[in-house]
Formats: sequence, C-alpha cells, structure tokens
Amino acid sequence: MSNTLSQVAEILEQRKSAKADSSYVASLYDKGLDEILKKVGEEATEVVMAAKDAEADSQKTNKIVTEVADLWFHTLVLLAQQNLHPDDVLNELERRFGTSGLVEKANRQTSQNK
Amino acid sequence: MSNTLSQVAEILEQRKSAKADSSYVASLYDKGLDEILKKVGEEATEVVMAAKDAEADSQKTNKIVTEVADLWFHTLVLLAQQNLHPDDVLNELERRFGTSGLVEKANRQTSQNK
Amino acid sequence: MSNTLSQVAEILEQRKSAKADSSYVASLYDKGLDEILKKVGEEATEVVMAAKDAEADSQKTNKIVTEVADLWFHTLVLLAQQNLHPDDVLNELERRFGTSGLVEKANRQTSQNK
Amino acid sequence: MSNTLSQVAEILEQRKSAKADSSYVASLYDKGLDEILKKVGEEATEVVMAAKDAEADSQKTNKIVTEVADLWFHTLVLLAQQNLHPDDVLNELERRFGTSGLVEKANRQTSQNK
Repeated sequence: MSNTLSQVAEILEQRKSAKADSSYVASLYDKGLDEILKKVGEEATEVVMAAKDAEADSQKTNKIVTEVADLWFHTLVLLAQQNLHPDDVLNELERRFGTSGLVEKANRQTSQNK
Repeated sequence: MSNTLSQVAEILEQRKSAKADSSYVASLYDKGLDEILKKVGEEATEVVMAAKDAEADSQKTNKIVTEVADLWFHTLVLLAQQNLHPDDVLNELERRFGTSGLVEKANRQTSQNK
Repeated sequence: MSNTLSQVAEILEQRKSAKADSSYVASLYDKGLDEILKKVGEEATEVVMAAKDAEADSQKTNKIVTEVADLWFHTLVLLAQQNLHPDDVLNELERRFGTSGLVEKANRQTSQNK
Repeated sequence: MSNTLSQVAEILEQRKSAKADSSYVASLYDKGLDEILKKVGEEATEVVMAAKDAEADSQKTNKIVTEVADLWFHTLVLLAQQNLHPDDVLNELERRFGTSGLVEKANRQTSQNK
C-alpha cells in the first residue's frame, strides 16, 4: 500500500499521452488547469458535505473516505499536470513534522502536556 | 518516505490526548468538526490560488506543493478526528485503480490509444 | 434594478412547480440540496479563479462579474429551496451595518482616521 | 431595503481610504486580493455547513441566512477592491433572466409544463 500515491502518479503521467476522449483523466488534462481546479473546489465541498452527513448519521462515516479519495485524486491530477510528484508533497509534510524523529518528539510533547 | 502519511496519522492520534492549547492540532480538535471543515475549504481555495499564481508565473510552481501539503494535512486531521486512517483512503484509491495490475493496465490502454 | 434579487427569487419560486427536466433550476431542485451546495462550492471556486485571472490580466476583470453572478444565483436557488428569501439576507446585512445611519457613520469613522 | 447592496458598496468604497487597522474591511483591503479570496472560499464552505446543519435540524435554517450574508458581504468586498459595483452583478442577472418580461415568461413556461 505504501506506494499507492506513486503508482497513481505514474498512471496519471501515462495518461498525458492518451487521447482526449479516452479517459476521464485525459479529458481533464485536455480541458486544462481551470477544469482541474474546479474539480478540486467541488471535491473539497463534497468532503465537507460527507463529514456533515456522518455527523448527523454515524452510519455514513465511510462516505468521508470516498470523498477524501476523490479530493486526493484530483490533487494528484493537478500535481501531474504541473509536472510535480506526490513525493514533493510528502517531503514537505516530513519537513514540517521533523522527519524521522517526529513521532518520538510528539510523544515527548504530549508527555509534557500532562 | 512511503510511510509519511501513516506517521503523520500517528502523530495526529497522539495529539488527541494533548491539552487544547498545546498545539495547533489539539486546538483544532477542541474547536471541533466545523472548524476542521472550514480549514479544508480554505486550504482547497489556497491550492486554487497557488495554481493560478503558478500559471501566471512559473517561478511560483512550488507554492502548489506547499498548499497541497496544507490541504492533505487538514484532511488527515479530519480523518483522525473521525477515527479513520489514511490507509482507508489509499485502499479506496487502489480499489478504483485496479490495485496491483493497475500500472500495467494503464500501459496497455494508452498503447491502444496510439 | 433595485428589485432584481426579488424578481429572481420569484422566478425561482415558480420553478419549484416546474417539471424536473424543464429547466436548469427545476433539475437542481430535483437533484436536491447536495447538488445545489456542490454548485455553491464550485461557483465560489470559479470566482476565485476569475479574480486571479483578472489579477494577471486586467482585461479580464469582467469575468469576476459573471462568476459572482453565478455564485449569487446559486445562493438564491439555495434560499428558494429552503423557503428563504433574499430579503432575509439583505435584512441581515442592514442589521449588521446599522441600517439607515450606516453610511453616515462610516463617513464619521473614516474622518476620524485621517 | 432595495438599496441595501448599493449602501454596503458605498461604505466599502469609503473604507478604502481608512487606515489598515481601523476596521475589519480596511484590514482585508490591506492584506490584499488573496486574503479576500480566501474569505470567499471559507464563507462558501460555511454556507454549505449551515445548509447541512439545517437539513439535520430545521430549527437551524436561519443559520443559512447568516452565512449567505457573510458570503455576499465578502463578494461585495471583492467587487469594491476590484472597482466593480453590485449593480454590475445585478445587471448581469437581469440580462440572463430576460429583464422586465422575465417573471411573465417564467409563468408562461411553467404553464406549458403542466
């Protein structure tokens, strides 16, 4: 599972050479940046709606997973279209969280808070 | 790098027991779901703005990485708050993309399109 | 022009009794609240993109007008679907801005700032 | 009530000459376009959340009014910052809806659908 994002990124890269009508992703590339961004905005809204649905009815929690997957997927399309890679984003997250020592540090910090 | 999302998720889990004012994440948990969702909406907007900035000036492409990291981070906070795990989302992405055979299949499909 | 919002609201009210496929609005009502909210999120994203386009090229300022009209329109659909009226929103804006004495008060405040 | 939007626009125009820390609006102008757009995105998200809250509990319908007012207000700030006027947006809405004969036409259309 650890390489899921990279695998999806590889597929998205391959789709760049596909014909415009051959796949959903190829058609997104063909319509261009604004269409991809519109989808990012729309999927973020759907995450919000799914979370509110889950708040009202805990049976619906799994809808959050589906919608976050949609949102992540469309950000992966954006990254691919911009010749960026999910590893760039993961590196940025690691940088912020202090990389390797991160989990350890968090343990220490929460200990201090007790 | 492959475990970045899981490591961030572990940290987010630990923060649940932190005091409300001890970290940004703990304060988000404390304010509750609506505050987290507001951030998801806001960060999605910032991704859109960063991409438009990059479109106007390619020197700014790296801003997209920073903002996608912010957006993913806040969806990770949402998942943690809902007792969900990034693996749930990655599994969903794998399911859609046909798992292991996925990259292969994509190769075949783009070949057919040529 | 002063009654534009009320006129649009009247039309939106009438569309409630229209058949689902007879107009864009009737089809939105038919699909229900989530579809209307998705449009609100999408149109807000388009306002953001239009404003960034205008920032990069002042010839495109008018796109902001078109996209804000789209956004307002879809919030009017939301209000109608919820049996609310644009006057409810205008009243709220008036309440916040101190109604009649508002413009006057603003003049005074900006004078003091000089 | 008919002139509410114009009155708010007039106030927003006056605030342009206010010092940055003298009001919320002046501080938004001072931070610039991106900050205003971030608020538009955030307020759209809050409209979505308020509507979902109202769906789960009809006692909360009025929250929609408050949040739509917030959203419209921040789009008015955007218009002012771009030297646009709410009448530009209302004109666009009138143009789309066929102006004066609009309500009439809608009546005719819904009659035909019966």
